[in-house]
Order: sequence, then C-alpha cells, then structure tokens
Amino acid sequence: MTYKKFRVIKPEIRVLGVDDGIFKPRTKRFVPVVGVVFRGGYWLDGVMHTKIRVDGVDATRKIASMVTNSPHYEQLRVIILDGVTFAGFNVVDIKKLNAKTRLPVIAVTREKPNLEEICSALENLPKSEERWKAILNAGEPVEVSVRGGKEKVYMQTAGICEEDARKILQLTSTRSNIPEALRVAHLIASGISAL
Amino acid sequence: MTYKKFRVIKPEIRVLGVDDGIFKPRTKRFVPVVGVVFRGGYWLDGVMHTKIRVDGVDATRKIASMVTNSPHYEQLRVIILDGVTFAGFNVVDIKKLNAKTRLPVIAVTREKPNLEEICSALENLPKSEERWKAILNAGEPVEVSVRGGKEKVYMQTAGICEEDARKILQLTSTRSNIPEALRVAHLIASGISAL
Repeated sequence: MTYKKFRVIKPEIRVLGVDDGIFKPRTKRFVPVVGVVFRGGYWLDGVMHTKIRVDGVDATRKIASMVTNSPHYEQLRVIILDGVTFAGFNVVDIKKLNAKTRLPVIAVTREKPNLEEICSALENLPKSEERWKAILNAGEPVEVSVRGGKEKVYMQTAGICEEDARKILQLTSTRSNIPEALRVAHLIASGISAL
Repeated sequence: MTYKKFRVIKPEIRVLGVDDGIFKPRTKRFVPVVGVVFRGGYWLDGVMHTKIRVDGVDATRKIASMVTNSPHYEQLRVIILDGVTFAGFNVVDIKKLNAKTRLPVIAVTREKPNLEEICSALENLPKSEERWKAILNAGEPVEVSVRGGKEKVYMQTAGICEEDARKILQLTSTRSNIPEALRVAHLIASGISAL
C-alpha cells in the first residue's frame, strides 16, 4: 500500500470519479466503466473508459490499467469510486487499486454498505473468498458530513488519512451529496450504456 | 422551420451540446455521437448518444431521434452543434433538425468554415447534392465575440434570431471559447470512442 498525506488540498485538485453503466444482472456480459477527470468540483477535464464483466473479478485490474494508461494519470491526485462493488459483484479491492496506481482511493456510497447482505450474495459466486477479501480490504465505512453538514455519505479509503479524504469529499461535492466527478461519471456511464 | 424568439434567456437554460467521436476517415464505419445536457454553462444534467456512419447521410435523422426520444427533450431549449459536418462529411441539415425537433439549432466553429474546400470534398461523395443543400441551408457563418470580447467563434443558426443565439453562446461559454456543453460533449465522445 502507498500512503499519501496531503500537505494542502488545492481547490482545483484533479480527482477521478469512476462509475459503471447499466447492465442486465447475471449475464456475464461486459459493462462500460467510465472515469471522469475533474478539477475539484467544477470543471471536467477528461473522460476515460474500460469494460468489465458482470459478476466478474476483473474490476480492480481493469480500472487500474485504465488509470495508469490514461494521459491524465500524471495529473491525478485521488481516485473516487461509487462504492466497491461494480457490475454486480465485481468487487474492487481498493488496497490493490491503491498499490497498482499509487493513488489514494476513496469509495463513496449514499447508504451504509450492508456487509451481511453482500456476504450472502457472494456465497453463490465463483471465487467468493477473493471477493470477500476485497470487501474486507475496504475497511469499515465511515460517515462523512457533506454540503455544510446538511447531508451525509459513507466512505471507505485506501492510502489516504481520514481527515484528507473527508476534506476532498466536502470540497468536491458541489452539486449534490457526492463528488461532482462521481455524479457526472454516473450520468455518462448510464448515457452510453447501450452503445 | 419553427422559429423561437426567447422572452428571456435564463442563466440555467437547458442546452444540448452535440459532438462526434474519433474515427478513421473513409471507412464507412459507425462513429459515436454524444449529446450532453447542461444547465447554462455550469452543470451537467444528462448524457445521450447515437451512432452515425462515416461520410454517411444519416446525421440529421439520427441526431433528431436521439433528441426527441430522450427523457430530457421536454427540458431542452436549444441544440448546439460542433459545426455542421459530422463523421467526415455526414452533413447535418440544421433547418431540418430544427423542424424535426422544434428546437432552435446553433452550429458553432472556432474557425470560419471554408465553403470552397467543403464543396470540392463533397464532389467525390455519393448524394453530393443533398449534402451541398444541407451546407447551404446552414447559411452564412456569423462572427460572435465570446469571453468578454477576448475571443471569437463563428455560428450558423436555424429557428432562432441572431441576437438570442449570440446571447446563448456568450452565457454558456464559461470555461473556453465554446459552450461548456459542447466542450464536454467533445471530451466524452473522444473518451468513449474506442468502446
């Protein structure tokens, strides 16, 4: 694991928001995953994409290479994921993603992840131990106040201290209770899903 | 043609920016076209897409149905295109697009379109008369000052008076010399082109 302590968090910090597209559950098809580069919470700087398999185990590897092969890689300071489960139960191991990209990772959810529910869903899938390990590697979800304390979200982090991650979420959640890069990644991934 | 005179142009006017992705010239393959809904020059509200053929004649029809079939259609007030030639010489007839969508259309370019150059390129393509008619339907490009007069772009319009179109371009060009919806549509279309 690499660990980043920010000296200062600039308002224009380059963040990557990552979300998956729409898919039919249990199809083993490919789902688009979109990464959106934002300067802080305001300006879109770039878009990247990859594809992962529904209920597959390729999310960590595919997202890591999408990031490190991108022309934006050098500018990026942090990766923000829409939770750790993509395309069904294709779990992102945020510790591994942090190690592979050497970037801090913050997984954000609006609801507190229900570990019991996830655990029982994983039981029926191949490589359930590998998936479960990735879930545990994400650590306990931590509550974060955003939008001046009016709303809250949950985060799991790798390679970044809680205080810095909290600040980054608060700074970049300009339009809703999640970082703008993540809100826009969701809109793009949904909008292109039938391509 | 339908004609819209705006009573007032709200800062949060919903505009659709439309641009095409990257493609190999003269391949007859499909190219993604992305439409991005913005509230004025600041917030992304949605993403839609279609596909058109390199050097085909389907751009007008495909973009019109992308717009009218979108859940955002009712909110949209104006369509902004990256010029009138998409995917090579797949020309958008902005008069027809205006009639089919009942929305004003503004085609924006950074450089003044060179009609002579376009004309000679069209000669070698099938349906060159239909394409040429679409080029002429776009009318003479008009210069517009943006970014407080520091920069200029060119526009061709259908279904909107020059003054309103000018105001919309000035209002929505927040980050560069083109409307933010168009700048972001370009980044998305390029970013997903290899999907």
